[in-house]
Amino acid sequence: MSLPVTAQHAAAGGPADETASTTGADPTPHAAWLPPEVFRPLGTRRVLVHGAGLLVDTVFAEVVRACAGHGGRVDRSAAGPSSAAAPEHGAAPPRPEGEPAAGPVDLVLALRGPHPLPPAVPPGAAAAPAGDDGPLGDEGFLSTRVDGVTVVLADAPAGLLYGLFHLVRLGEAAFTGDRPARAHRPALRRRMLDHWDNVAVHPDMGQVERGYAGGSIFWHDGGPNGDRDRLRAYGRLLAATGVNAISVNNVNVHATEARLLTDRLDDVADLADLLRPYGIRVHLSVTFAAPVVLGGLPTADPLDDRVRDWWDETTRRVYARIPDFGGYLVKADSEGQPGPATYGRDHADGANLLAGALARHGGVVHWRAFVYDHRRDWRDRSIDRARAAYDHFAPLDGRFADNVVLQVKYGPVDFQPREPVSPVIAAMPATRLAVELQVTQEYTGQQWHACYLAPLWSEVLDFRPWGPPERTVADVLAGVPGPEPRRDGDLVAVANVGDDRFWCGHPLAQANLYAFGRLAWDPYLDPAAVLDEWIDLTFPAPTVGDPALVRETLHAVLDDSWRTYERYTAPLGVGFMVDPDGHYGPGVDGYEYSRWGTYHYADRDGVGVDRTRATGTGFTGQYPPPWSQVYESPERCPDELLLFFHHVPYGHVLHSGVTVIQHIYDTHFAGVEQVGAMRDRWGRLAGVVDQGVHDRVAERLDEQLRCAIEWRDQINTYFFRKSGVPDARGRRIY
Amino acid sequence: MSLPVTAQHAAAGGPADETASTTGADPTPHAAWLPPEVFRPLGTRRVLVHGAGLLVDTVFAEVVRACAGHGGRVDRSAAGPSSAAAPEHGAAPPRPEGEPAAGPVDLVLALRGPHPLPPAVPPGAAAAPAGDDGPLGDEGFLSTRVDGVTVVLADAPAGLLYGLFHLVRLGEAAFTGDRPARAHRPALRRRMLDHWDNVAVHPDMGQVERGYAGGSIFWHDGGPNGDRDRLRAYGRLLAATGVNAISVNNVNVHATEARLLTDRLDDVADLADLLRPYGIRVHLSVTFAAPVVLGGLPTADPLDDRVRDWWDETTRRVYARIPDFGGYLVKADSEGQPGPATYGRDHADGANLLAGALARHGGVVHWRAFVYDHRRDWRDRSIDRARAAYDHFAPLDGRFADNVVLQVKYGPVDFQPREPVSPVIAAMPATRLAVELQVTQEYTGQQWHACYLAPLWSEVLDFRPWGPPERTVADVLAGVPGPEPRRDGDLVAVANVGDDRFWCGHPLAQANLYAFGRLAWDPYLDPAAVLDEWIDLTFPAPTVGDPALVRETLHAVLDDSWRTYERYTAPLGVGFMVDPDGHYGPGVDGYEYSRWGTYHYADRDGVGVDRTRATGTGFTGQYPPPWSQVYESPERCPDELLLFFHHVPYGHVLHSGVTVIQHIYDTHFAGVEQVGAMRDRWGRLAGVVDQGVHDRVAERLDEQLRCAIEWRDQINTYFFRKSGVPDARGRRIY
Repeated sequence: MSLPVTAQHAAAGGPADETASTTGADPTPHAAWLPPEVFRPLGTRRVLVHGAGLLVDTVFAEVVRACAGHGGRVDRSAAGPSSAAAPEHGAAPPRPEGEPAAGPVDLVLALRGPHPLPPAVPPGAAAAPAGDDGPLGDEGFLSTRVDGVTVVLADAPAGLLYGLFHLVRLGEAAFTGDRPARAHRPALRRRMLDHWDNVAVHPDMGQVERGYAGGSIFWHDGGPNGDRDRLRAYGRLLAATGVNAISVNNVNVHATEARLLTDRLDDVADLADLLRPYGIRVHLSVTFAAPVVLGGLPTADPLDDRVRDWWDETTRRVYARIPDFGGYLVKADSEGQPGPATYGRDHADGANLLAGALARHGGVVHWRAFVYDHRRDWRDRSIDRARAAYDHFAPLDGRFADNVVLQVKYGPVDFQPREPVSPVIAAMPATRLAVELQVTQEYTGQQWHACYLAPLWSEVLDFRPWGPPERTVADVLAGVPGPEPRRDGDLVAVANVGDDRFWCGHPLAQANLYAFGRLAWDPYLDPAAVLDEWIDLTFPAPTVGDPALVRETLHAVLDDSWRTYERYTAPLGVGFMVDPDGHYGPGVDGYEYSRWGTYHYADRDGVGVDRTRATGTGFTGQYPPPWSQVYESPERCPDELLLFFHHVPYGHVLHSGVTVIQHIYDTHFAGVEQVGAMRDRWGRLAGVVDQGVHDRVAERLDEQLRCAIEWRDQINTYFFRKSGVPDARGRRIY
Repeated sequence: MSLPVTAQHAAAGGPADETASTTGADPTPHAAWLPPEVFRPLGTRRVLVHGAGLLVDTVFAEVVRACAGHGGRVDRSAAGPSSAAAPEHGAAPPRPEGEPAAGPVDLVLALRGPHPLPPAVPPGAAAAPAGDDGPLGDEGFLSTRVDGVTVVLADAPAGLLYGLFHLVRLGEAAFTGDRPARAHRPALRRRMLDHWDNVAVHPDMGQVERGYAGGSIFWHDGGPNGDRDRLRAYGRLLAATGVNAISVNNVNVHATEARLLTDRLDDVADLADLLRPYGIRVHLSVTFAAPVVLGGLPTADPLDDRVRDWWDETTRRVYARIPDFGGYLVKADSEGQPGPATYGRDHADGANLLAGALARHGGVVHWRAFVYDHRRDWRDRSIDRARAAYDHFAPLDGRFADNVVLQVKYGPVDFQPREPVSPVIAAMPATRLAVELQVTQEYTGQQWHACYLAPLWSEVLDFRPWGPPERTVADVLAGVPGPEPRRDGDLVAVANVGDDRFWCGHPLAQANLYAFGRLAWDPYLDPAAVLDEWIDLTFPAPTVGDPALVRETLHAVLDDSWRTYERYTAPLGVGFMVDPDGHYGPGVDGYEYSRWGTYHYADRDGVGVDRTRATGTGFTGQYPPPWSQVYESPERCPDELLLFFHHVPYGHVLHSGVTVIQHIYDTHFAGVEQVGAMRDRWGRLAGVVDQGVHDRVAERLDEQLRCAIEWRDQINTYFFRKSGVPDARGRRIY
C-alpha cells in the first residue's frame, strides 16, 4: 500500500493529526488555576506587605494586581521594592522605612528581620505555633489570624510568596474567624519539573519529546520561544503549586541543545531571569560527551584531568552568568546516550565528576537511573528490563557525592499505568534520591484521555518499601531517618506543558500539573483534596446552574480516571501492550518480539512475566521483606500486579474471585462503560463552564471513547483467540 | 522509552539506516548487463549499418563504440545519419547515398525500404522465414546468417535497435555457422516501467516511494536530477531488455509533481529527449484533481464540459511539447487519491475523460484497478480487500475507451510473495488490460534480500484463468483471441532503480529489472534461461577460476530465492505478517487489527482467511470454473494458497502430507538454512567477480540471514504459542 506512514498511524487511531488542529500557540493562554476571581477575597482587603527582596516584590505586585481588580488597598513598609514592580502596577508608592501603614489592615504579609515587624501585626500573631518552634527555612511560612487580622510571616522572601498562594487557596476562609498559628514548610526541598523540550525540532521526536500540548513554551524552531509573557505566566502558575526547579531541555541532548551549556548559555540565563521572580531555579540537561563535542577534547573520561578541568571551567562560566543556576540533569549510558561506560568507568565516577564541578557553586547533579539494555534479544527470557536500575545502581550506594541526586523512575520499567514501586528506593540508604514521575501522559492517553494521575502518585508515595509500619516513599524523600540516617531527596516529574492554549492540550490534564506541585510540597496530601483545590481555583463558582455541579462532575470524571485507563489498557500489571510508534492506542504484541523488552509472553495457556526467584528472572529478590516474599508468591501477590510478577494460566483465580481471563474481559468492558459515563457527565456542563474549555474536553472525551473501544476489542479479541475461553457474560468479542 | 522512532525501527531490524551508508549517487555507475566485453563479438567484425532515423543513429553509434573498443570496422550506407552521432564517435564519415560499403562485411544491420538493400546483403538473406511472412511491425526484426554474413533486417528503426541487442545476447554464436531466418516481434506492444519517484522529497515516503536504491535518477530535491549521462545509460540498459515506456513520477501525485503536467512540462520533455534515442516513450502520473489544483476550476467532474475542455487543452499542450508522449497513469479513488467518485461518477467516466483528450494524439491512459477500502473495520470479517478490484471494475467491462488500459496488480491484494492471480483478468474480455508487477521489492526483501522474481512472474503469466487448456495470462495480454475477440494489453512493473551505484541497491536485483523487460517482450521465456542471459551479460567470463563457477553459483543463489523468501516469511498464502512501518521484517499481527485489512485471523485452533462462497467472503466466486471450484474446496485448493482461501485447523493435513502447523515450522527452518547456503555459495566468488559487487552482495546476504532468522523465530514462536503444537523435529522455538 502507498499511503504515508503518518497517514497509516492516523488510520490506526493515533490522534496526532487532530492534535495539530487543536493545539498550537495562542495569544491568550487559559488562566488555569489562577483566574482573576480567585484573588477576590484577598483583593477586597486592606493589605500590608512588609519586607524587601525580589520575591517580596513579586508578592507585592500580586497583591497590587488583586486589589486593583477587586477594590482593595495595599501598602508596603520596610525596605522598598528592590525593583520597579510596584510603580509599574500603578499602586501607591511605598512609604519610607519604618513609617507605619495608614489605618487598620485585614492582612499582613511580612518578612521577619532584619526589620522590626510593623505595628499592624497584632500582639501574639508572631508567636510560634504550639509545639512547633522550628525554623521556617528558606521557603516556609507561618500563617494565623488574630483579632481580625490575617498574618503571614516568613523568614525568607520565597516563604512569603508561598504564603500568599496559601491564602489564595483558602479564599474567604482566610479572612473568617480566628485561625491558630500554623507553620508551613515544604516536605521536599526540591520540587522539579523536567521539560523534554528540544531547542531544534527533532526529525523524529519533534519540538517536545513525548509532548502532547503543541510546541515548547521555552523553544521554537532552533531558538528561544520569545513569548516572555507566557513564560512569566507559567512561572506564576508553578509558584502557586510549589514547584521551585525546572530543567529546560530534553534529557536526550542533541547537537543544538548541547550548546546551551556554552555558547547558547544566554538563552538559559534569559529563562532564569524570567523564572527567578517566582522562586524557580533553572537546571540544564547536559550530554556526558560535552568535553568532546563542545570542548574538543579527545575524551570525556571522568577520571581524566583535562575533562575535570573542562567541566570545572565550563561550570564556573555558567554560574558567572547565572548565579542561582540549579545544576545538571544527565541521562548517561542509556538508550544511546553517551556515558562513563565508554571509558570503563561507572555511574558514580560520572556523576561525581559533575558534582565536583557544581558543589562549590551550590549546584546539584540529577543523574538518571533509567539505564537498561535496549538491544536485548526477545528470545532470552532471563533478561529482565525491570532488574536493570537496581543491578546498575544498588552496588554503587555510598559512592555518590552529597550533591548527586539519583533520579529513579517510580516503577522498575517505564511509566506504565501500573507497576510495582522501584526496588531501588529501598536499596540505596546512603544515596540522595529523586523519584521521577511523568506528568506528561506518554503511556496514559497522551492528554487525549482524561487520566488524573495523583492517585497513582499517592500510591507510590504511600508505599512502604520495608512494609508497614516502616517508612513510606514520602518519608524517604522527606529524609525521615529509619534504621539508618537518611538523606532527603526530591520529587521530579516530566512536564506536560506546551504552547497549547490550555497549556496541556487537555484542560483536565492541568489537574495533573497542579497536583504534582502540591504533592511535591506535601506528599501526604489526599489526591481528592488536591483535586478539590484545583477545581475551586480553576472553576470558580459558575454564574449559572448548581454551584456543586461542577465539583461533582469533575470528581465523577477524574477521581477514578487513572484506574479506568488501567482497566481498558493494562490488566493485572501487564504493560506495553501499546503501539510501539507513538505509544498511543493498542498493540498487544507491539513489544512482544522487540529489542526494547517483552512484557506479557501470552500463549494459549497463560499470560504474564515470571519474575520470581524460584522460576523466573529473580526480580522479586531485589525487594526487602515483606515484599520479596509477597511478590514471589502468586497467592500473596496483589491482583493488580499479578501478571507483572507471575506467568499464570488463564484460569487462575484472583483474590477478587474471578479468573484472569474473565478479569481481562470484565475490566475492558467496564473501562469502556466508564469512559462513556465520563463523557455523558461532562456533557451536562455545557453552558455551565467556559465554552472553549467545554468544547476541548468534549472533543477529547469523544476520542477517548473511540480509543477505549479499540483497546477493549483488540485486547479481548487477542486473548480470546489465544485462550479460547468465552466471556462468561456472553458479550461480543471478535 | 525515548529513542527516535527510526532508531526503534533500526533496532527492530529495519536496515534503512545502513542503506544510506551504502547507496547514493556515484559518478561511475555499474555497467550492469552491458559491460564493454559483451560487445566484443560485434566489435571485432566488419559491420555495415544501413538506414536512416534517430534510432538507426543509435544503432550506428553503438556499433561505432563497439568497433572502437575492439578493433572492428563500421560503415554506413543509405541516407546519412540524421544526427551528428557518427562524427562524434570518431568513425569514418558515412558514404554518399547508394555507394556500396568497401570490401566484404561480417554483419549487416539494415532498414528495409524506402532504400534498396545494400549489395552486402547476401541473396536470400532477406527472404521471409518459412511460415512467417507477417509484417515485422514497428519493433520487430528479422535475423539470419547466410554465407558467412550475419544479417538483421527491420522495417522500422526500433526493430534494428532490438536486433542489435539480440546479437549482443547471442555473442559469438551470432557469427558462427549459418542461422535460419527468424522473425522476432514483441509479444506485448507496451513494456512499461512505473517509477514511483517523487520530484520533491516526501516527508514520509522520501524521494522514491517504496524505493530501496537511494535517490531518484530522474529527480532530486524538488527538481531534475541533472545526471544526464546516467539517464542515457539507463535508457540504453532498458532498450537492451525491450522496455519501451516509462512513467516518470509517483502514482501518488503530490503538489509539486502535479505541476509536471503544466508549468514543469519542460522537465518531462527533457527526459523524453534523453530516452527517445532508446525507443522509450515517456508517460506521466497525473492527479485526477488537476483541473482544480492546476486549472483553478471549481470541479474535476469528468462529465463537466469545462473539465473536459481543460484536459483537452492541457493535453494538446503536452503533445505540442512532446510529440511522442506516451500518456497518463492514474491512481484514482484509491488510498486517499482523488477520483471520479467525488462527483458521483464511476471509473469508466473518469478514464474515458482522459482517454478522449489523449486519443487524437495517440496516447493512452493507464488506469489503476488498485482500488479498495483502506478504512475498513477489522472486526467485520465480511469485508475482503481481495474482492475490491473485481467488485469495482468487472461491472464496467465494455465501457472503457479503446485507449484506456486498466492496470491490474497480478494478485488481488498487494504484491505479496504469494497470491492467487487476480480474477479481474478473466472478468473483463472487452477491456484492454495491463498486468502490474513489482520489480521493486516492497514485500520481498527491499533489495536487501536476494529474491529473483521472474519465477513468480512466470507463474502469473503461465496461469490459465479459465483452466487448462484455455489461454494463459500471457495469451490474454498478447491478444490471443479466445471465445471472444481480445484486445491486447501491456505488462507493467514498478521500477526498482535509484541513483545507487549498482542501480538497484542489491546488484543481484538487477536480474529482476532485466528479466522484467525480457518477459515483457516474450512472456513465454523460461526464467532460468533469462537468468542465463543476464549472467552471461553481467558477468562475462572471469579472468580467474572456473568460468562455470559464476553461472553455477548465481543459479544456486537465485533460482529458488523467491520460494526461499516465501518459506521464511509467508506460509501457505498468508500475507502481510510484516512490520506495518516500512514493510521490512516480521510483524505477525502487524495488520491483524488494522484498517488496511486483516490477513490471517490466527487463533488457538487454526489460521487463514475464509474466502469461500459457502462460509466466507465469497471471493472464490470471482473466478470462472475450474478455479471457482478448486479454490472453494480446502481439499482441492493448492497448498501454497490454502490459507489465502481457507481458515483451517493447525492439524489440517496438506497435499504434501504434513500438517499446516508443521509446514509452518518446516518451511521457516528450511528457509533460513537456504539463506545460509546462499551466503556460503556467494562467499566462494570472492576474488572471482568484481570486488565492489562481491562486497555489496556479501553485505546484503549477511543482513538477509539475520532477518530470515528473525522471521523464522517470530513466526514459529507466534504460532507455537497460539497452537501449542510442538515441532515434530524438536527444533528450538521460543
